[in-house]
Amino acid sequence: MLDASHYRIIAREGKPEYQGNLEARRVRVGDVEFGGAVPPVIAGPCAVESREHTLAIARAAKAAGADLLRGGAYKPRTSPYTFQGLGTEGLEILAEAREETGLPVVTEVMDVRLIEHVSRYADMLQIGSRNMQNFPLLTEVGKTRMPILLKRGMAASLSEWLCAAEYIARGGNLDIVLCERGVRCAVSRDYARNTLDLNVILSARQSCILPVIVDPSHSTGVAEMVPLAAKAAIAAGAQGLIVEMIAEEMDACSVLCDGRQSIHPRVLEEIVREIRSGLAAGVR
Amino acid sequence: MLDASHYRIIAREGKPEYQGNLEARRVRVGDVEFGGAVPPVIAGPCAVESREHTLAIARAAKAAGADLLRGGAYKPRTSPYTFQGLGTEGLEILAEAREETGLPVVTEVMDVRLIEHVSRYADMLQIGSRNMQNFPLLTEVGKTRMPILLKRGMAASLSEWLCAAEYIARGGNLDIVLCERGVRCAVSRDYARNTLDLNVILSARQSCILPVIVDPSHSTGVAEMVPLAAKAAIAAGAQGLIVEMIAEEMDACSVLCDGRQSIHPRVLEEIVREIRSGLAAGVR
Amino acid sequence: MLDASHYRIIAREGKPEYQGNLEARRVRVGDVEFGGAVPPVIAGPCAVESREHTLAIARAAKAAGADLLRGGAYKPRTSPYTFQGLGTEGLEILAEAREETGLPVVTEVMDVRLIEHVSRYADMLQIGSRNMQNFPLLTEVGKTRMPILLKRGMAASLSEWLCAAEYIARGGNLDIVLCERGVRCAVSRDYARNTLDLNVILSARQSCILPVIVDPSHSTGVAEMVPLAAKAAIAAGAQGLIVEMIAEEMDACSVLCDGRQSIHPRVLEEIVREIRSGLAAGVR
Amino acid sequence: MLDASHYRIIAREGKPEYQGNLEARRVRVGDVEFGGAVPPVIAGPCAVESREHTLAIARAAKAAGADLLRGGAYKPRTSPYTFQGLGTEGLEILAEAREETGLPVVTEVMDVRLIEHVSRYADMLQIGSRNMQNFPLLTEVGKTRMPILLKRGMAASLSEWLCAAEYIARGGNLDIVLCERGVRCAVSRDYARNTLDLNVILSARQSCILPVIVDPSHSTGVAEMVPLAAKAAIAAGAQGLIVEMIAEEMDACSVLCDGRQSIHPRVLEEIVREIRSGLAAGVR
Repeated sequence: MLDASHYRIIAREGKPEYQGNLEARRVRVGDVEFGGAVPPVIAGPCAVESREHTLAIARAAKAAGADLLRGGAYKPRTSPYTFQGLGTEGLEILAEAREETGLPVVTEVMDVRLIEHVSRYADMLQIGSRNMQNFPLLTEVGKTRMPILLKRGMAASLSEWLCAAEYIARGGNLDIVLCERGVRCAVSRDYARNTLDLNVILSARQSCILPVIVDPSHSTGVAEMVPLAAKAAIAAGAQGLIVEMIAEEMDACSVLCDGRQSIHPRVLEEIVREIRSGLAAGVR
Repeated sequence: MLDASHYRIIAREGKPEYQGNLEARRVRVGDVEFGGAVPPVIAGPCAVESREHTLAIARAAKAAGADLLRGGAYKPRTSPYTFQGLGTEGLEILAEAREETGLPVVTEVMDVRLIEHVSRYADMLQIGSRNMQNFPLLTEVGKTRMPILLKRGMAASLSEWLCAAEYIARGGNLDIVLCERGVRCAVSRDYARNTLDLNVILSARQSCILPVIVDPSHSTGVAEMVPLAAKAAIAAGAQGLIVEMIAEEMDACSVLCDGRQSIHPRVLEEIVREIRSGLAAGVR
Repeated sequence: MLDASHYRIIAREGKPEYQGNLEARRVRVGDVEFGGAVPPVIAGPCAVESREHTLAIARAAKAAGADLLRGGAYKPRTSPYTFQGLGTEGLEILAEAREETGLPVVTEVMDVRLIEHVSRYADMLQIGSRNMQNFPLLTEVGKTRMPILLKRGMAASLSEWLCAAEYIARGGNLDIVLCERGVRCAVSRDYARNTLDLNVILSARQSCILPVIVDPSHSTGVAEMVPLAAKAAIAAGAQGLIVEMIAEEMDACSVLCDGRQSIHPRVLEEIVREIRSGLAAGVR
Repeated sequence: MLDASHYRIIAREGKPEYQGNLEARRVRVGDVEFGGAVPPVIAGPCAVESREHTLAIARAAKAAGADLLRGGAYKPRTSPYTFQGLGTEGLEILAEAREETGLPVVTEVMDVRLIEHVSRYADMLQIGSRNMQNFPLLTEVGKTRMPILLKRGMAASLSEWLCAAEYIARGGNLDIVLCERGVRCAVSRDYARNTLDLNVILSARQSCILPVIVDPSHSTGVAEMVPLAAKAAIAAGAQGLIVEMIAEEMDACSVLCDGRQSIHPRVLEEIVREIRSGLAAGVR
């Protein structure tokens, strides 16, 4: 099933320096390093909805201890009639937020024609779950020198996910970070948006040399569950987190995208503090 | 859940001529019509692997009673190291096969940059399961005048599928045929590639005005099951089929792509005969 | 995965008379035979709710062409606060209905302590989905001479289902009919109670010598889908059906159990007529 | 969906002392308390396979810091041809192990006729996943005064699980501990036996007053994942663990049941130490 010949560049198998350990390739984004001793935290709004909102969240994310800023300028939305992102304006807002806070920017690209454009503003490109098997997109980002955050598809097997990463690696770009974001499962619809699959972390780390992080926001869909999922992810060996936030004074209903799963800055602060203090837990 | 305001152009709701019936919008591809009294059959190889092979299958498909020719020139493959299709050469072979047999050509496009190119050869564009939520691709094919075959994602809900079709319709292109191709389910891995979900057919037809067809090849993954799945699909109200074939003298292992689920021409002939003779069955 | 040594008594493997064909062991219930040329239809109420209601449905089932009467006297209900069945009184009503219509009675047993009691009234014992792996119950019904209808568990693999049948067969009772009743799947919750898994029919028939029937009521959960699912099941090789009905004059809301998926007698009549006329379809 | 009227006795809703907190009812087994500040750890062999093996594991479990001893005397096995447990002899061995170590015994009962017999030896009765909806069994253990460990079914929704607990509570027995043990999910078959569903913990605790523990052995199926899953479970709010062990000198292949997912005593010791030292993490 997990035949490493299909993801040979990123496979742990056959690489002597990666045998007998769970060491990951270090992926640097600005001054931040994935795969090292300290798990980076990416935080920010689901979508860039306005300049004020985004700058406020960016400042709060920085203050809470986040290492990178996330935010969608181009949003893949199930319905064509919901907010689709601000596009270039959103990218400019993100760049301004980076300027002010110093946090490198992670943002999604879903159109091959926009890779160059988005790369001008971003420090790391996110490939979203719905595009995990968009092979032209994977191939093209593999030709860039941008670090890539590759989310797992919502029903993807581990080998499909690793092969998707291999499409990127084949272009010469090995700066890939894998991100588990919950899978679709029959049982969980009563209480959660997806099922957080922590079992995949160890398997992914044993199979390949890439760092693996977790998105506790999409994998739960419920703000109250996010701190628990975040800490559980770190305990299970996750090498970083990506979390959706709203500003302190906002409530979930006033945001256009994913408010229900977004946490307030003080909750992020608590997560960062707890995972940093409890670093003895988890695989390393 | 199924809020028709998110797929309003294709919704049955609010269209008087589509009330109290299950009538579908007619989608014409050459002389073939989807949504009418007779369910069209699309048949052909998984991938265009060579000129000889493809022409042989096209002739056999025609002789067996198929109405359109399928065949992949650009193939979305899980692994970057398996056959990816012949590209333009494959398109030219398909065009030659159409020339010879008169069968209109259905082929997949997975790259927004190739829509125009593929449209020069194809009569109908297929959007594959892995791209069901590739929104730029949906938006761009919505601007063409090409009929679109929209496969359901392998873990897509009905509303996600209908919203994907709406992305196409919003561009002004309503010539969309939906295609159920099996879903990923925990229980079936012992004996089948996917789980054929026939329950979705009636629901999709009740929710929208588009014709709904079934792919018995991918929804089973096993050649022996294909005739049973094909007949069951028609009995369950499917308005057409898309089937993978290999040439009469070939065996499953000699093809590069999906041999295990491909049927021989004489099996196709039997399927066509049985579904045409048994047309009294199924919803109409 | 499908290691026949774990279900050796019922396995097709190693039985010369069952090689090169899909012949099934004939299972007789009264004058009705499962596994022969004509697929029997079991019909009746979900639960025996009253004498009048049950007798009315039994007469209607008989008139519509059903071969056996179903009805629950002991009901496995998710909630302890919903109607649990009439118990012995229900069994007596079923016996009276058999007396009047001549239809053999199929009813569920879920308690090892009641096998003997239920067997006094029933002609065939049903083991429900929730008890597919209730091994003491399987073992005990295996010691009886009663024909057994073994429903598939709602997330059971094929090998688990076959092994469950083997528990019965080991006691010396090979009069077992398998029943597919839909599986639980992440994608279908919008429009159906379960996902009807027709792919399993051929695999089950190829793996073992037992007849395989389908329950189109539970596998859809929606009355309108039942005739489609019933015909699709027969087309896919099902060797019988078990269908839930309500009386002609009743509506779905007035019954205590599963009204939404129960069909009226005239719909049953149409199903019986169509599957009998279309017998050329399907595997045999 | 989660209508508390169906599990009213165990519901948090409507009980003033359980509002605005996540307090659980305390369930005592011997001197051990579930639902309090310290999460108890249940450990022991999958099945009682021999006196020597069981006593060795019991001593090692005690030394490693476990609070209760688990071990199956009656085993629900998929295949009728695999080891089914030692029955009464197994119960006697467990009693001897308790005598020697002082650890209370948790063991499964799957037959209503054996409840009294098993209760003579056990301190807590386990209802396994396959019997989560064995309603006669639930009803009968509800009439005992034994603490009950109720495992979640492998495809059970939260409301089905809570309703199953309510069947027990209705008999007057509220000494119930819920146990998440992984769910069956399409994506995980490559690398794990089940998908550990940590999202359900908070939801279950918010919905009812019962303590919720996690089984990291069955929810992963892989010994190497067990410590990670155990720590993640505690971080996610689990109020205890149940873990399968083998003796220090044994290897996974020499045991008859579930060797692949069983950990050695030194690993258990590490788990106990880490979860006790890191108690600041998790919900309380």
